[in-house]
Amino acid sequence: MTELPPYWLRDNCPCAECRDPRNGQKLFQIHELPPDLAVAASTEADGHLEVLWSDGHRSRYPREWLDGTDEGDGRTERGKRLWTAADFAPGLPGASWEAYLTDPAEQAAVLAAVRDSGFAVLRGVPTVERQVLRVAESFGYVRVTNYGELFDVRVEPSPNNLAFTSVAIAPHTDNPYRDPVPTLQLLHCLENSATGGDSGLVDGFKAAAVLREEAPEAFEVLTRTPVPFVFRDRRTELRADRPLIDLDPKGRIREVRFNNRSTGTLRGSGLDAFYAAYRRFAEITLRPELQLTFRLGPGDCLVFDNTRLLHARTAFQQDGHRHLQGCYADLDSLSSTVAVLRRRAAALDTIAALFAGEGAAEYLGEEVTMAEHMLQAAAAAEAAGAPDHLVAAALLHDVGHFHGALHGTDLMQGQDNRHSDSGADWLARWFGPEVTEPVRLHVAAKRYLCAVEPGYRERLSAASEYTLTVQGGPMDEQQAAAFAELPGARDAVAVRRWDEQAKEAGAPTPGFAHYRPLLAALMR
Amino acid sequence: MTELPPYWLRDNCPCAECRDPRNGQKLFQIHELPPDLAVAASTEADGHLEVLWSDGHRSRYPREWLDGTDEGDGRTERGKRLWTAADFAPGLPGASWEAYLTDPAEQAAVLAAVRDSGFAVLRGVPTVERQVLRVAESFGYVRVTNYGELFDVRVEPSPNNLAFTSVAIAPHTDNPYRDPVPTLQLLHCLENSATGGDSGLVDGFKAAAVLREEAPEAFEVLTRTPVPFVFRDRRTELRADRPLIDLDPKGRIREVRFNNRSTGTLRGSGLDAFYAAYRRFAEITLRPELQLTFRLGPGDCLVFDNTRLLHARTAFQQDGHRHLQGCYADLDSLSSTVAVLRRRAAALDTIAALFAGEGAAEYLGEEVTMAEHMLQAAAAAEAAGAPDHLVAAALLHDVGHFHGALHGTDLMQGQDNRHSDSGADWLARWFGPEVTEPVRLHVAAKRYLCAVEPGYRERLSAASEYTLTVQGGPMDEQQAAAFAELPGARDAVAVRRWDEQAKEAGAPTPGFAHYRPLLAALMR
Repeated sequence: MTELPPYWLRDNCPCAECRDPRNGQKLFQIHELPPDLAVAASTEADGHLEVLWSDGHRSRYPREWLDGTDEGDGRTERGKRLWTAADFAPGLPGASWEAYLTDPAEQAAVLAAVRDSGFAVLRGVPTVERQVLRVAESFGYVRVTNYGELFDVRVEPSPNNLAFTSVAIAPHTDNPYRDPVPTLQLLHCLENSATGGDSGLVDGFKAAAVLREEAPEAFEVLTRTPVPFVFRDRRTELRADRPLIDLDPKGRIREVRFNNRSTGTLRGSGLDAFYAAYRRFAEITLRPELQLTFRLGPGDCLVFDNTRLLHARTAFQQDGHRHLQGCYADLDSLSSTVAVLRRRAAALDTIAALFAGEGAAEYLGEEVTMAEHMLQAAAAAEAAGAPDHLVAAALLHDVGHFHGALHGTDLMQGQDNRHSDSGADWLARWFGPEVTEPVRLHVAAKRYLCAVEPGYRERLSAASEYTLTVQGGPMDEQQAAAFAELPGARDAVAVRRWDEQAKEAGAPTPGFAHYRPLLAALMR
Repeated sequence: MTELPPYWLRDNCPCAECRDPRNGQKLFQIHELPPDLAVAASTEADGHLEVLWSDGHRSRYPREWLDGTDEGDGRTERGKRLWTAADFAPGLPGASWEAYLTDPAEQAAVLAAVRDSGFAVLRGVPTVERQVLRVAESFGYVRVTNYGELFDVRVEPSPNNLAFTSVAIAPHTDNPYRDPVPTLQLLHCLENSATGGDSGLVDGFKAAAVLREEAPEAFEVLTRTPVPFVFRDRRTELRADRPLIDLDPKGRIREVRFNNRSTGTLRGSGLDAFYAAYRRFAEITLRPELQLTFRLGPGDCLVFDNTRLLHARTAFQQDGHRHLQGCYADLDSLSSTVAVLRRRAAALDTIAALFAGEGAAEYLGEEVTMAEHMLQAAAAAEAAGAPDHLVAAALLHDVGHFHGALHGTDLMQGQDNRHSDSGADWLARWFGPEVTEPVRLHVAAKRYLCAVEPGYRERLSAASEYTLTVQGGPMDEQQAAAFAELPGARDAVAVRRWDEQAKEAGAPTPGFAHYRPLLAALMR
């Protein structure tokens, strides 16, 4: 009998009754679980723990899931790479805008740098106004504030913020008076011909960790004191009371706010201790070894974590022009984009491995392997000038035959691997209906074609003729009419024709790698 | 000698060298204050504490500010009115859309209800698509998510979220897998003719406070356990680890997240204790006395605090249509709007009081009081068909003479009350340059008119002729040419002419109240 906590175990039941197979959302409320829930019986077999519950429900948990560990959401110091300036002597994390746009691996690397190191620089971003919004939209959503959808950082005649002057700005985080604070900031350099105006970054998590090391009591004071941050102009009156160093419930550093310009009046006791700690923290942020300094040139776009990095600017002379455009966005969507890009890359790796491994097995009595068959179908689609989504559908139409596609990955998704359209369902995690529906309907398309096209059935291979019977034989008139009405029916018929052609022993085709960029593009 | 904490006191120095008079931002960094800073001498006089610092700097603090207390940012339980359903037996907080749009007091009351009670209902919001975005923009900014700028809540064929089905939805908060979580949600009912589909709200802060009262150890567990919330679809993979009940550093309830659909797999020790506490909290949220139930009809728009209120929906039949449009926004901007609306109302009250009080005093030797003079100027502008901003400028042109306008309010703003354009500066906190610049230039306009318009000087009152000399006499040719180039010069000349006309003893005019709506509209 298992010793696992019963409500925890039951709350994680992966069956389709407990969890929506399409999106993984739970279909019950925690209060709906019976009181005194207990495991009535449990057995381990086939890499799974099977549980019979006291209320009669049955659950089946993959051992791999039971043994899983967890890395957290990556938002605390635990998930970060804390740094000093010397760590970037070899260069700043980043990529060219072009590589970022065209290569999902580059995009994932840039965004992962923002998540892990707190920043990255895109180079060669077109120096046109509002382009910074395009950068934000490449991974998430713009957060509009009282400064607008975007803001111009340049000298203004009557500034409502020191950012819009030419004076030096000490390391700080932005908008501390907002709650929720914008978690990401983007600064896109359009022009920087003035003397001075260099950029600086400090890892606020590192500075906080140094403070904790050198003066634990000061660290404690800063984590325990909500500081009123305020901003006020004619149309705005913002205030947020947040500590300079915010911890998660486990005591890990999760957020840093640092901006003396916007600190309001702290009231209450402990003010001497707070100011001593505050000044000590400020002193650490100014240590040369923590200050990363560099110059943004036209076309550079700096993306950084505003809950972690302090940013600064040296003063500049008005002997040239300095013009940045900035906007805010949020880390949650950025992290989501990294995860999705990596999931897609992993899916392509999995599919590639299936073609190379299981795909080398025989294909239901045909004279080609499964991989050869699908590559031939894709090549036929390509030769016919088919659009990308149909080349992909042809390439992947029999992926439901792959045992490996429906096991071993995403074990908790509640997939039914006995269903005839399991291949389409599996593909639907990455591809849209323009790819999945022809796959879903390609068996029906055979039954349709045999019904409506004289001579089609006679051209089937022996194996295909055999499976036709298993699958229900040719459609009757009513079935055929209904099929023709389905969205994707026409595409499925096209895929089916390439499917039939793709059984020629030894026919040369491109390998799977040839189709990878096309699949990657269709995943977006 | 003062016993006040020296760094705290100095950090709050209100002088124009320490703090930008325009926006109140601090002009120094905390590390720039000298080590061993001390008060060298201090004296109390005239309601102020005057301090000479060890580094030679001088500060002057109003006693009123020194004695101030602080209510916090209003985001924790301390700033809220916790409720049970019975509290709303007399009716739900809210207003008609029309009243909300036209009466700043109604708008402030509705938004303050969202801030304080967690929700309000606007009635009669036009039932047109995308109108919910207009509601959000009336007080803040839309937060875009993976569900789009807005989302349609109705039955969908292939939903990626249970919200888009007809099943009952238990009380929950939205988007717990986002960090920052959207702090406000809006739901605008376009159609609700189905049977069922009623709305429910629960005050999550109240439920948490009940848990703390009844089971302090369970409350403790929920505040100490980061829970992984997850959401995943083809283009999204979100995760945030946050406790069900989040406290501020002082231990006050600050945020509630509650959504079993989206809870992922918790790992680690203490799982039994967590699930016992979680189920106990869930049980409290379901108590009938905490459940506020009502029905949204077409045109109703519910605005609620998604960090505090749990919302629910009963199941509905497909015997009619139910269609809501929703969007997210944030509390910080909503609170800012409340503060600005109240600040504007307070400014109008202050101005009204000045007209009634100090304004009844004699006006520099004229035969009218200051209030009569300014009301006559406004009436003259109105009679001339002047646009609203010039009626306002005429009404307020001499506000710089009011002692009360420059004392007693916003003591920490570093105002210089000796400067001739102090009136314009004071007005600039609420009014745009179209109002303030004619006020700023109305003295110069007299000097200009005396220079360029034959016979103008002869028509001046005796008092005005006297002050002309004090103010520098008529402009020379160069000064007049420069003046004519200033933005607002033309408007200032117009105001000046009404100014000269407004010195007729006993002339009847409307009272200040007549101009209040005009001023309120100009403040937006």
